[in-house]
Amino acid sequence: MEKEEFLQLYRHSLAHVLAKAVIEIYGKDVQFAIGPQIDDGCYYDFVLPRTVTEEDFPVIEEKMREIIKRRETWTRKEISKADALELFKDQKFKKELIEDLPDGETITTYNTGDDYVDLCRGPHVENSQELMGTAYKIKSVSGAYWRGDETRDQLQRIYLFAFPTKDELKAHLAWLKEAQERDHKKIGTQLDLFMFRETAPGMAYWLPRGWILYQELMKYSREIQLKHNYTEISAPLINNKKLWLISGHWAHYQNNMFIVPGITKGVNATDAVESDDSSAYSVDAEDTMAAKPMNCPNAMMSYKRTMHSYKELPIRYSEYDVLHRKEKSGQMNGLFRVQEFRQDDDHTFVTPEQIKDEIKDVIAIADEIYKTFGITYRAEFSTRPDDFMGDIESWNSAEASLKEILDEKYGDGNYEINAGDGAFYGPKIDLQIKDALGREWQCGTVQLDFQLPHNFELTFVDKDGAQKMPIVIHRAIFGSFERFIGIITEHFKGAFPFWLNPYQVAVVPIRPEHNEYAQKVCDTLRNAGVRVESDLTDVNMRDKIKRFKQMKDPYILVVGDKEAAENTVSVNVRSSNKQLQGVPLDKFVDLCKKLNAERTLELPQEI
Amino acid sequence: MEKEEFLQLYRHSLAHVLAKAVIEIYGKDVQFAIGPQIDDGCYYDFVLPRTVTEEDFPVIEEKMREIIKRRETWTRKEISKADALELFKDQKFKKELIEDLPDGETITTYNTGDDYVDLCRGPHVENSQELMGTAYKIKSVSGAYWRGDETRDQLQRIYLFAFPTKDELKAHLAWLKEAQERDHKKIGTQLDLFMFRETAPGMAYWLPRGWILYQELMKYSREIQLKHNYTEISAPLINNKKLWLISGHWAHYQNNMFIVPGITKGVNATDAVESDDSSAYSVDAEDTMAAKPMNCPNAMMSYKRTMHSYKELPIRYSEYDVLHRKEKSGQMNGLFRVQEFRQDDDHTFVTPEQIKDEIKDVIAIADEIYKTFGITYRAEFSTRPDDFMGDIESWNSAEASLKEILDEKYGDGNYEINAGDGAFYGPKIDLQIKDALGREWQCGTVQLDFQLPHNFELTFVDKDGAQKMPIVIHRAIFGSFERFIGIITEHFKGAFPFWLNPYQVAVVPIRPEHNEYAQKVCDTLRNAGVRVESDLTDVNMRDKIKRFKQMKDPYILVVGDKEAAENTVSVNVRSSNKQLQGVPLDKFVDLCKKLNAERTLELPQEI
Repeated sequence: MEKEEFLQLYRHSLAHVLAKAVIEIYGKDVQFAIGPQIDDGCYYDFVLPRTVTEEDFPVIEEKMREIIKRRETWTRKEISKADALELFKDQKFKKELIEDLPDGETITTYNTGDDYVDLCRGPHVENSQELMGTAYKIKSVSGAYWRGDETRDQLQRIYLFAFPTKDELKAHLAWLKEAQERDHKKIGTQLDLFMFRETAPGMAYWLPRGWILYQELMKYSREIQLKHNYTEISAPLINNKKLWLISGHWAHYQNNMFIVPGITKGVNATDAVESDDSSAYSVDAEDTMAAKPMNCPNAMMSYKRTMHSYKELPIRYSEYDVLHRKEKSGQMNGLFRVQEFRQDDDHTFVTPEQIKDEIKDVIAIADEIYKTFGITYRAEFSTRPDDFMGDIESWNSAEASLKEILDEKYGDGNYEINAGDGAFYGPKIDLQIKDALGREWQCGTVQLDFQLPHNFELTFVDKDGAQKMPIVIHRAIFGSFERFIGIITEHFKGAFPFWLNPYQVAVVPIRPEHNEYAQKVCDTLRNAGVRVESDLTDVNMRDKIKRFKQMKDPYILVVGDKEAAENTVSVNVRSSNKQLQGVPLDKFVDLCKKLNAERTLELPQEI
Repeated sequence: MEKEEFLQLYRHSLAHVLAKAVIEIYGKDVQFAIGPQIDDGCYYDFVLPRTVTEEDFPVIEEKMREIIKRRETWTRKEISKADALELFKDQKFKKELIEDLPDGETITTYNTGDDYVDLCRGPHVENSQELMGTAYKIKSVSGAYWRGDETRDQLQRIYLFAFPTKDELKAHLAWLKEAQERDHKKIGTQLDLFMFRETAPGMAYWLPRGWILYQELMKYSREIQLKHNYTEISAPLINNKKLWLISGHWAHYQNNMFIVPGITKGVNATDAVESDDSSAYSVDAEDTMAAKPMNCPNAMMSYKRTMHSYKELPIRYSEYDVLHRKEKSGQMNGLFRVQEFRQDDDHTFVTPEQIKDEIKDVIAIADEIYKTFGITYRAEFSTRPDDFMGDIESWNSAEASLKEILDEKYGDGNYEINAGDGAFYGPKIDLQIKDALGREWQCGTVQLDFQLPHNFELTFVDKDGAQKMPIVIHRAIFGSFERFIGIITEHFKGAFPFWLNPYQVAVVPIRPEHNEYAQKVCDTLRNAGVRVESDLTDVNMRDKIKRFKQMKDPYILVVGDKEAAENTVSVNVRSSNKQLQGVPLDKFVDLCKKLNAERTLELPQEI
């Protein structure tokens, strides 16, 4: 049996054991809904006579152990819909599930012992005994709605960790603890990087330290793109519905847009606004606008402002404008899923012959960027779906170019092919990066687009003097900077590489009489382009060092009589307990300059 | 007679002559409305039997000359409201004006000769003869609405330039021509800096060249602010109504905000959006949001995230976030009045004792920045209005500090005092810059605020351990970058200083075989931080040079055999016809580096 199949079998079976245990504890009146397996175990939804708390967990776990020890037989039965409805007549959720099935459908049930039967397609273990070696543990209990609909019954969802062995469960719990310690929301507060407030859900406040980091990322992105001959533009953040009608966003993306309805015709705008008269606003009004969820339509408009010759192509318009996308409140999650963000976005306008070189260059940029963060990635190639637009020859030739690049770069078979999974407007390559916890994140993407140039009627004059339509390449390497910062905050556990850390060096004088030399050290470093912070107040030296350590500043310099006399610094290195004494100031400055210039990943522990 | 009084007298009289001329040409059925004087002359509004075009201008001007030559006497009369209504019974607009006057009011009329009488308070000349030396000329004709209300009569408004002498008119016309040539909208298109599209009224598209310039301005602003210990933050662009209720913007600024109404309670959001059902949106809904028109409220929230000690103050939060303010379509004007913009905004949190030093530092920053652009400015001090908030002692002490700074800096009397003109929340200093055309623009502002810290309940812990309220200083030096770019585009007529120009150097090879050396020159300059563009295509050399000249690139380098052999460049300097031959490349690079480092205003014509 495959591991995945095995996990599915016993996790699903453990969900039944959990349900049976809960019924045995809370009585026959318990309403049980559904109990699917999930990534690290399973859960079951119930309506219970009282709220389950952490104190109840050991009781339920003990009851589960007891049930498993009973070595009960699991019996599969096939019954009619009518019989099923009779069997589950006291279970409203099961009844609803059965009623939704087509008439005449055979329904399968599973008995665990004599007194517990569940509606289930299976498969399951044949006897509880098979579950004896497994490791499980209740993770948590939380509220849920029947079928996720907040107007339906409220349920208690009990989550179970479930693994084949005790070691695997232990490893998973350790991994989880590590993940919790790395939680970017927690670290973001500790390092004073960003915050969220309920007056702007899913939109980050970037605090001074976090905003430095954010800007350093943008600066790095811009440096690389300048080197690769990208030019940057910036376009309106709020655009009239007319634009979204052309781009297709009004028809296909309206749900996710922040809409600014216009004023209904005939209504005086000032009166309408002042009286808070809602009926005055209408999305049908001529002046209805919406915040942009993507940069593409504005990039098309920028291209379209003038005639272009084939000699100018490729034209690369990169953009870092702020985008807004509406998310359901339950889906927002720190920086991982936000409503406001910036991307290292680009739209490149090319001729068909230029596709290959251009995509190759994008992959080269991705290589360079991910390497700087010490992050590996893998590529996924998504090809023509059934509902593709454009002519099949363009698709074939474009896909062949992409495949060639991928084969050359990674070797045949060393990337994934998602056949038929491309967007209707063109094939794409997604880049999945892997973080320190082994989790994968899709950050980079390169997509060909035959559709938007068509919608915006874009042209270029080719060698032969004919007007032709360029192809658009959408691409991003970081993806959303917000999400990327969330990922690397967890990846580095807040201890960012020197070049990226908000403050790179902190300076602490031993006593007030060393403030002058401390100031000189700060100035020298600042003039060398190093981001320095210092504390020259009358706070105790140890407290200052402690605070800068908490902020994970890479190097903390301590300076006193000896250092001032010798023009040296004593250096506390992040994640090291020793202090490097008597480091010549100019040597230290040179090190910092080198770390910045080379964007070194590892922090040197010796100087 | 004062010049202003004199201008008023005869401009107003010329408006009557204009009306009389129009009636004599178009007949007694002409309805004439009002004819006030304006900055450079006067206008008169009419309902005419046909549309006036430019061909009619000389005819009207000739008729005016004829009327003036008649030496007609101007007679003032005082009549009753009833007599006035009888006198103007065929003039609907005059009748309406008379009806609006209180009963019993004495009404004054002016006759010009026998057959033309106008409703007017005067004063006027006593005889047309007095107007003989003056210079006038019809400027234009345009549509207008009676009383500016688009539901009322449509009128033809004839504008007249009017000056005391022919020389003054000539000078004004020359000034106007110069202003038209400097029009930033025209130059913006010529230099491909920015554009506007009807799908985003009043919101600029920043094209590659313009966006470089914009970013260089921000970079400069950031550099100076970093030197003055400002820290930068960035905050959500769209915020819930709850925030605007606290800040007071919902009550006082709602008209100018782009509002994103929430979904009415009980309506399913997805259905509402998909069905375009307007009634589903309501500004009363809990989740109603609005795009921020100012950074202040978010800055207060950022300050409030944690406790602050007096030791931390002043805390300076600068912000370059995108702001949105609704403008009536008629009020928008290129970059001068936009709906979307960024400011070099800052909110500084200070104790009362810190006000003076802080404002002094702001003025020092303004001095430095304006000097870099070669622009002079003057200060205006606005003091406590009647409806002030806060205690009078704080106001007195704050105003005394500001006055001291102004006296020290500019000398008593060398700045304007607008007594009682301060905002209700605090006194302020505005900085008016003067451009190359002598026009004044308010860009810089420093405002104290006792109100917002109160609304957001901000505190700091003072030396004595007591929680006190900080004072907020709002300040901007550039003001809106969009508007500032509009101003300097006209000021420099598109020939920006070297450090600011989008591309600083253009490189042109004489023939294709010189491409290699041209590329070397480009690379050398780029490595020295110089923004270079080149054209290595097969376009004719002269056309390339012509195009780069049109783009006003400061230096255009031409390279051929001689230059490649000697490692030199031939330099075409902007606004000069001569070419500097055989300039050593390294010498030229050094010059560019110096111009960038020092942000030199004038472009050296010799190297």
